[in-house]
Amino acid sequence: MVKVQSVHSQAIHAEERAHEADHPSSQVARFGAEQPLRLDCGVDLAPFQIAYQTYGELNADKSNAILVCHALTGDQHVANIHPVTGKPGWWQTLVGPGKPLDPERFFIICSNVIGSCMGSTGPSSTNPATGKPWGLDFPIITIPDMVRAQAMLIDRLGIDRLFCVVGGSMGGMQTLQWTVAYPKRVASALAIACSTRHSAQNIAFHELGRQAVMADPDWRHGRYYEEGTYPHRGLGVARMAAHITYLSDAALHRKFGRRMQDRELPTFSFDADFQVESYLRYQGSSFVERFDANSYLYLTRAMDYFDIAADHNGVLAEAFRDTATRFCVVSFTSDWLFPTSESRNVVHALNAGGARVSFAEIETDRGHDAFLLDVPEFVDIARAFLQSAGVAHGLVAKGK
Amino acid sequence: MVKVQSVHSQAIHAEERAHEADHPSSQVARFGAEQPLRLDCGVDLAPFQIAYQTYGELNADKSNAILVCHALTGDQHVANIHPVTGKPGWWQTLVGPGKPLDPERFFIICSNVIGSCMGSTGPSSTNPATGKPWGLDFPIITIPDMVRAQAMLIDRLGIDRLFCVVGGSMGGMQTLQWTVAYPKRVASALAIACSTRHSAQNIAFHELGRQAVMADPDWRHGRYYEEGTYPHRGLGVARMAAHITYLSDAALHRKFGRRMQDRELPTFSFDADFQVESYLRYQGSSFVERFDANSYLYLTRAMDYFDIAADHNGVLAEAFRDTATRFCVVSFTSDWLFPTSESRNVVHALNAGGARVSFAEIETDRGHDAFLLDVPEFVDIARAFLQSAGVAHGLVAKGK
Repeated sequence: MVKVQSVHSQAIHAEERAHEADHPSSQVARFGAEQPLRLDCGVDLAPFQIAYQTYGELNADKSNAILVCHALTGDQHVANIHPVTGKPGWWQTLVGPGKPLDPERFFIICSNVIGSCMGSTGPSSTNPATGKPWGLDFPIITIPDMVRAQAMLIDRLGIDRLFCVVGGSMGGMQTLQWTVAYPKRVASALAIACSTRHSAQNIAFHELGRQAVMADPDWRHGRYYEEGTYPHRGLGVARMAAHITYLSDAALHRKFGRRMQDRELPTFSFDADFQVESYLRYQGSSFVERFDANSYLYLTRAMDYFDIAADHNGVLAEAFRDTATRFCVVSFTSDWLFPTSESRNVVHALNAGGARVSFAEIETDRGHDAFLLDVPEFVDIARAFLQSAGVAHGLVAKGK
Repeated sequence: MVKVQSVHSQAIHAEERAHEADHPSSQVARFGAEQPLRLDCGVDLAPFQIAYQTYGELNADKSNAILVCHALTGDQHVANIHPVTGKPGWWQTLVGPGKPLDPERFFIICSNVIGSCMGSTGPSSTNPATGKPWGLDFPIITIPDMVRAQAMLIDRLGIDRLFCVVGGSMGGMQTLQWTVAYPKRVASALAIACSTRHSAQNIAFHELGRQAVMADPDWRHGRYYEEGTYPHRGLGVARMAAHITYLSDAALHRKFGRRMQDRELPTFSFDADFQVESYLRYQGSSFVERFDANSYLYLTRAMDYFDIAADHNGVLAEAFRDTATRFCVVSFTSDWLFPTSESRNVVHALNAGGARVSFAEIETDRGHDAFLLDVPEFVDIARAFLQSAGVAHGLVAKGK
């Protein structure tokens, strides 16, 4: 076990560098010059590293490994206290003792994606050619690149085949990409609230976020690390925009409606009169404390470029032709970022490709965020899918 | 007729002040200290002025006047070449010879709302107390304030009763407010793609836009006029966000999909690879050339505060009780900013209040923007409504 390098702190507060103690005891897999990451953009990235957390034990025949793929602003801290925010793991509804992904049964791996900022190599990491942070000199990465790096990590862990790959949103994109890029290495896949391509509206919202970051003079064309600035205003605005898309109109109405904040009458000012305004401001300001602005640019770009069908002559079913992976696709009725119609497209393509697939469209008004929330029907479906996949793969006894 | 004062140019380019020639020959109604505008926030605004355009002639008994209310970033140039952009009027589909609002028949008035920047008094106007632009010292205005100012203009024009008030989006809010505030002065009302209150999601998008403007250091707490700066980046981001909400997911998909801009392969960069990115960037940058950033703050705030029911003990039907106005409410199925369900609520309240109301829910994938576009079914409905209202009010002969 190696302590993660403090690449993140450079990004967060230029003035608070080298607070290594703030950083987690994540394990780190380092890959040297002899093992470059071949990126879709044509660059060989080397050296690079992947930070990851594990929960549970790998069994003797290495057949019980589950890879959890995180979403855009997630990280490897899926089921432990977050080292920066002090908050519980981001997927405690699904991962933990007695949960569908139970460390008593499974060896659960969650790695920080390449391009992110929680210990894996990204734009805030040091560019070995200059000794300075990469900034915008970091090569553009894609969802397939993220998955390629994860595959190298899985190799390093000595695991040939994953029992399951699980993820929601950008994590769901990685999950689907795993089944396409490494069909023999994925016994089962649970893809939640995602799609095989980013829509025009999704790209539009991401472009809005990127422009907000880039509009902030403190962004300094991505060189804020060296200049001692941080584009906290621009990144805050980007996060506010994203947060609106994570909730449904109904959920915002239920949570906030037109209720005022600590008052009954309007102040006739630009103060945060409405609760929804305070909520958004808080989401924006708390996010910038834990995330690197350049990583936000790179990861949104990776999602925009994602289009599995495009790599298969425009025919999505071809990507899944004769797959042996067992699929479960989950969507939420009020998710307008990754609408349930996108999941249906995936299911149709899987059916056309001859895959075994179950599909659950869960009725909820909680929007895209539902995959991170305690939605009992979703948890039950995840449990049932892992149970049946476990039985099929001889991992768990029937009825256990 | 008085040439409009150059209050707008102060807002747009501090360095390009006094280009009066760029500004329209809008008529201006000036109200002095003896005729203050009583604002909901408690302030008496005086002096103030309203810039407006008219089309057609007022008939002898002054019974053929139609007031058109513009939307958030609209203005009085409803059916003439815009003096700043050089583009055609913003509602040529509805207003003009042979159109439903035909200047041959009607005297059509469109005034720039109070708080805006095309000649009516707003934050870019001169504060008489200081001799400098108001900036954020301008009082907060509301939709009822806009309507109160319009009523003073209508008085000035010697018109007692409007044959019709027409508007979409924020213009629809004003239309509904007219029927509530001055029920005897409005014979008919055509309210399009609007609601009687702003939803939590609507407020969230507006707050996002305001935060984007305020995050721009060139905004200078609203004092950019004197400081020779302009928050073009922040306002551009705000406009991009708004534009996403004006189009439906389907419309964005049809218009742009995942098509690349002038290329087939991705550049693996943050350039505008996708057409939808170029489109948004253009929308953002062209908007800042014609609109005052502080006006954007004030007008979005006015929409957020709008809630007709709140002023009637929370019972919307009470607002419309025993109204003599003839209503037509129009919504568009793919409008997610002012969803058709909001229009249904208005119609239910109108029915409960005993109003004569017709409701048209128009099937289109063009989103909120549909009210500004050439949607034949919508144009036909507007024509039919004005025809029947004209007959009922003895204004046009049956079948004419």
